[in-house]
Amino acid sequence: MSFKIGVLLSGNGVYDGSEIHESVLTLLAIDENRGQALCFAPNINQHHVVNHLSGNEMNEQRNVLIEAARIARGAITDLAEVTSASLDALVVPGGFGAAKNLTKWAFSGPEGEINQQVKRIITEMVQSKKPIVGLCMGPTVIAKALEDTGLKQHLTVGTTKETSPYEIDAISAGMEKIGAVVEMKTIKEISIDVENRIISAPCYMMEGSITDVRDNIKQAIDELFEMLEA
Amino acid sequence: MSFKIGVLLSGNGVYDGSEIHESVLTLLAIDENRGQALCFAPNINQHHVVNHLSGNEMNEQRNVLIEAARIARGAITDLAEVTSASLDALVVPGGFGAAKNLTKWAFSGPEGEINQQVKRIITEMVQSKKPIVGLCMGPTVIAKALEDTGLKQHLTVGTTKETSPYEIDAISAGMEKIGAVVEMKTIKEISIDVENRIISAPCYMMEGSITDVRDNIKQAIDELFEMLEA
Repeated sequence: MSFKIGVLLSGNGVYDGSEIHESVLTLLAIDENRGQALCFAPNINQHHVVNHLSGNEMNEQRNVLIEAARIARGAITDLAEVTSASLDALVVPGGFGAAKNLTKWAFSGPEGEINQQVKRIITEMVQSKKPIVGLCMGPTVIAKALEDTGLKQHLTVGTTKETSPYEIDAISAGMEKIGAVVEMKTIKEISIDVENRIISAPCYMMEGSITDVRDNIKQAIDELFEMLEA
Repeated sequence: MSFKIGVLLSGNGVYDGSEIHESVLTLLAIDENRGQALCFAPNINQHHVVNHLSGNEMNEQRNVLIEAARIARGAITDLAEVTSASLDALVVPGGFGAAKNLTKWAFSGPEGEINQQVKRIITEMVQSKKPIVGLCMGPTVIAKALEDTGLKQHLTVGTTKETSPYEIDAISAGMEKIGAVVEMKTIKEISIDVENRIISAPCYMMEGSITDVRDNIKQAIDELFEMLEA
């Protein structure tokens, strides 16, 4: 019997959805560990659509679930139909979709609202002691979901000591404001919260190659399977 | 100095564009070989847009280059601006986009027209003896581009001896009709045409896991770098 690993997608593309490399490399690492990846996403409109060539907003509307289905090759479920009972673990990949569609962190920081289905599945997982992995911006979604729990979960979105395209200090401060304990980790490292069973990895929050991201995700997912098999 | 490897994308999603897993795993394998991946795509409208959740056509128009930019994280060029002089090798990943946007194979088989910029770049590469890799449906694009050359290039799109979601026999017959010599290869194998410097791999043309596809692409790209370094 293989472990069922939920993968919570937020669209399809780094600037308005799930980061594609991180999502695919998550599916790969789960399969390499002989796990079964189960993709799902909220059935809502994207916050907006970004032209990934120009960086400009497009005058279009797209649905998060329908676009995420591209990464999943059609094998995807509406998040509203998924409960923690059908999962052994949950992974939240990064991309701006995590901070635009799952929460509104990209616009309002830690005060931004979280999608209620997203909050529900993350809370259910933690309450049933099932492990969660957050990649890149994914940990901000986990922090927001657990805001009211007082769990003091340890998380990382990277380190201020190495080069990042993003404001690691401001994002980390926002996470601490809503109760997370932030760890500074490079793209070669992961954060492991043994007590709360939460693993996080910086991935593309830091400057890095696709191989760095592959290795960082493999490290996180391998650790996840060690937790599941322990 | 690292080798510059062109990656010819055809959109972003298996049913109307580039197969996402194959494209990402191509970028990974190039980086693992210390090559520099240069993504490009034709600046044209997609043949159509497919809802990857339902499989139905959507009443929308999308641009191949703009959508492919999602896989490339914005680092992509219009194919019309690329010549073989700036490349050491070329990779054509699969997905229906290869057979809907680069050629019209999905609708008209080997008689379907090929995009003239696609034909130009592939012909240029072969004329300058620079190697080409075709993955999944990618080899049909190569066969169509080289139709008039009389090169008798060896190519594979899989094997009729194992399970495939597609009609390997009909596609193979179509390729032979326009001058290719077709080899039957499983997802564990690649085809190597030493004389014409063309490598091909079945990937998702056959039933297989994402790990099988990863390994098949790694095998093809490793072989490409052996050719380049020889």
